[in-house]
Amino acid sequence: MEWSLTIDKAMPRPLRVILRGVGQVFFCCNAVTGLIFLVALFIGGVTAGAAATVGVISSTVAAYLLGFSEDDIDAGLYGFNGTLVGPCLFLFLENSPQLWLYVVLASVLSSVVLAALMKILGPYKIPASTSPFVLTCWMFLVAVYAFDSFSRGPVLPHPGTPAVVTDAVAIPADMWFTALSKGVAEVMFADSVIVGILFLTGIAIVSLRGALMAVGGTVIGVVLPMLLGANQGMIEMGLYSFNPVLTMMAVGWVFLKPDGRSAVLAVLAGVLTVVCQAGLASFLAPIGLPTLTFPFVLTMWMFLFAAGMSKYWSHPAAE
Amino acid sequence: MEWSLTIDKAMPRPLRVILRGVGQVFFCCNAVTGLIFLVALFIGGVTAGAAATVGVISSTVAAYLLGFSEDDIDAGLYGFNGTLVGPCLFLFLENSPQLWLYVVLASVLSSVVLAALMKILGPYKIPASTSPFVLTCWMFLVAVYAFDSFSRGPVLPHPGTPAVVTDAVAIPADMWFTALSKGVAEVMFADSVIVGILFLTGIAIVSLRGALMAVGGTVIGVVLPMLLGANQGMIEMGLYSFNPVLTMMAVGWVFLKPDGRSAVLAVLAGVLTVVCQAGLASFLAPIGLPTLTFPFVLTMWMFLFAAGMSKYWSHPAAE
Amino acid sequence: MEWSLTIDKAMPRPLRVILRGVGQVFFCCNAVTGLIFLVALFIGGVTAGAAATVGVISSTVAAYLLGFSEDDIDAGLYGFNGTLVGPCLFLFLENSPQLWLYVVLASVLSSVVLAALMKILGPYKIPASTSPFVLTCWMFLVAVYAFDSFSRGPVLPHPGTPAVVTDAVAIPADMWFTALSKGVAEVMFADSVIVGILFLTGIAIVSLRGALMAVGGTVIGVVLPMLLGANQGMIEMGLYSFNPVLTMMAVGWVFLKPDGRSAVLAVLAGVLTVVCQAGLASFLAPIGLPTLTFPFVLTMWMFLFAAGMSKYWSHPAAE
Repeated sequence: MEWSLTIDKAMPRPLRVILRGVGQVFFCCNAVTGLIFLVALFIGGVTAGAAATVGVISSTVAAYLLGFSEDDIDAGLYGFNGTLVGPCLFLFLENSPQLWLYVVLASVLSSVVLAALMKILGPYKIPASTSPFVLTCWMFLVAVYAFDSFSRGPVLPHPGTPAVVTDAVAIPADMWFTALSKGVAEVMFADSVIVGILFLTGIAIVSLRGALMAVGGTVIGVVLPMLLGANQGMIEMGLYSFNPVLTMMAVGWVFLKPDGRSAVLAVLAGVLTVVCQAGLASFLAPIGLPTLTFPFVLTMWMFLFAAGMSKYWSHPAAE
Repeated sequence: MEWSLTIDKAMPRPLRVILRGVGQVFFCCNAVTGLIFLVALFIGGVTAGAAATVGVISSTVAAYLLGFSEDDIDAGLYGFNGTLVGPCLFLFLENSPQLWLYVVLASVLSSVVLAALMKILGPYKIPASTSPFVLTCWMFLVAVYAFDSFSRGPVLPHPGTPAVVTDAVAIPADMWFTALSKGVAEVMFADSVIVGILFLTGIAIVSLRGALMAVGGTVIGVVLPMLLGANQGMIEMGLYSFNPVLTMMAVGWVFLKPDGRSAVLAVLAGVLTVVCQAGLASFLAPIGLPTLTFPFVLTMWMFLFAAGMSKYWSHPAAE
Repeated sequence: MEWSLTIDKAMPRPLRVILRGVGQVFFCCNAVTGLIFLVALFIGGVTAGAAATVGVISSTVAAYLLGFSEDDIDAGLYGFNGTLVGPCLFLFLENSPQLWLYVVLASVLSSVVLAALMKILGPYKIPASTSPFVLTCWMFLVAVYAFDSFSRGPVLPHPGTPAVVTDAVAIPADMWFTALSKGVAEVMFADSVIVGILFLTGIAIVSLRGALMAVGGTVIGVVLPMLLGANQGMIEMGLYSFNPVLTMMAVGWVFLKPDGRSAVLAVLAGVLTVVCQAGLASFLAPIGLPTLTFPFVLTMWMFLFAAGMSKYWSHPAAE
């Protein structure tokens, strides 16, 4: 919306760049949205908020010192991976003072990995998206497991109320509401309804279609696993939702022409993201790694690469 | 042969495209060959034949609806991955009505993955070949294991006669014949001599060299594992053969200038395919995944990329 | 140094090409350096030296027969992967006459894989480095485990003196010296101080900066794992050092403009190589595979791709 862009432009540059970095987690190049996200993160937990702040600053400053494109830095593109690295390491590793150093180092690495993937994917006009966050966190998590200097934190967030629910129709309305909003919140590892609502608000400020796609993604991430007989506790925490949320936003709003056809494609991509997540989770379980947002990344890459071969979406510049 | 091309051209377009899709499993853009393959599949088992039919139709129609290149669709390129997806899912998962829906969904995804890989590999003029089939089936197999709504089917086809054979020389001639023809049949998961012979016939209609390379591949896939001390039952079922069959056809007939030099290269590639298959099988065993045709895909990619660096095979257009 | 280049040029071509192949293990296109390395290898162990010789000859001759670029062959680029394949297979598999055949076959494959990766990475001006050696050896190791015709050799070299050392300060000076020099020797699987010193001498003949980077890499590979609480025996054998040694040489000397800025970047890359190695080791442990030099390859690729996006290092030709 107009007013939010005005505020975005009125901010001092360093603050704007950092807040845009937070906003880019949901593809929003808007400091007001980033501020709402950051406030929501602190509401979800002070440590998570602080870790995200340290992460976004570290990755952005690293990109500046390493001489990467100032335009990209200004758009917050070197911020969102750091934003995710912070809370992720604090969720999966034991809290300790040393961990802050790890967050800084991992956030710096995420900027190096992002630049590398931009170089590789650039000719195809495909975004690296959150893949640097995923690859960096995987590397740090397995490294920490190897060195044993940290003990392993909880691999999954506290399980919430394990409600005994047997079929979709029997779920009361408020539980649906919980599952749907937490699905958006879990993108940044928050197990909270209010955080999810704030995230959706921040997205809606930038684009109603974006917010709609996010809601569509949570619906897929709740209904589909239910039909396939997945674990109820995980569904209610939104752990099947955050990947299709991102996929539907990417395919149905950000990277393809936003029309009816790409909305249909986004639903198909959302469904396949859930399949991909279940598959990747099985694959990674023996190593003890979480899938993070890699199911979203893989599915989005497949669909965007494929779109480049279609007469409906191929970008003239990329042909 | 001339007459087969005449029949191919005389068919109504939808039928021709679908049958060519089946034929492309062995690189044959010919509806007559495709028809022979399909009949063979039904002889091997009605379910496998029906699953292949559903798969090839789903993936071809999906490619059409998603707006991919009509030339590629007409050549059957969007059909062969679906042809393989169908019988594969029915072999490795428990038969149930729901499974037909999975076959459709996986075949659709295989077309998306094929378009994506064509976009990526296009600049190098390297074919995606059966990799979309492999990646899609792996994803669906691990996803199904994760959701537990299907129980896991037999990971390997029924073991056949576990003949007690100790060295190559001692094998009677008819057993050799069995092993060699089944090696070709197993490309489409058929454990049957007659299916193998029909497949070879279909290939020979298009190219004698192609059929010769296929036979060469089965010989490598029987003799080499025998020398290396592999499991006899697997060798006799042709489970070490279907990968070198495809590699030798790709390297020695389809993608490089078919001369003496590429025939020698094809033998080397065939030998390394067996090594690659043994390696990949060890690697995938803990996850419970079959290698499918990925050893062929990996080896073919290596040799075709490498051929682009050689003065003997580099394509002028790709330099 | 001048004199070494004169000797290099005076040698008969086949000898020069082979010795340069050995030299290229440490990025040195210099036959004198290669000769020092080869002598050092034989001092470390006659089998290792002979295996390296068979490997470098096989991979170089294969590249010639397959028609790959004569310039690249002359520079020794088709030799160093074979040089590494030989001692690697002899370390990890049981010694047997058949193993020599495996070394030849694996060295030939390493040249095919190198050409393939050169084709893929060429447009980005990124080197394949030792990745063909790693991929080929992984494939052969898992294949051999699968076929059971060899029993599995020691997965790690004999553990050396398991000195009871608790912190870095307490280590006596001579033990530091041992750890530092062995770190360089382990690049070619030699657990020996004298071999390490000879390797450093060979590098210093070509470039003092290169030798300095190598020493920097061993320091990182000793100090960092110590701080992170890694296994003392492995540190003293230099098993955490050989990867950062190669990374620091690649980033700080060979592939980026050698100045102060790239030296700082090399230190950062060296630190992350150790993290990557610990991570990859955890990841590969269930399959029983060693990391070999893949942590170096991955980190170097990340940093070189990323450098292409930076205003400080981007190559004009690659933009």
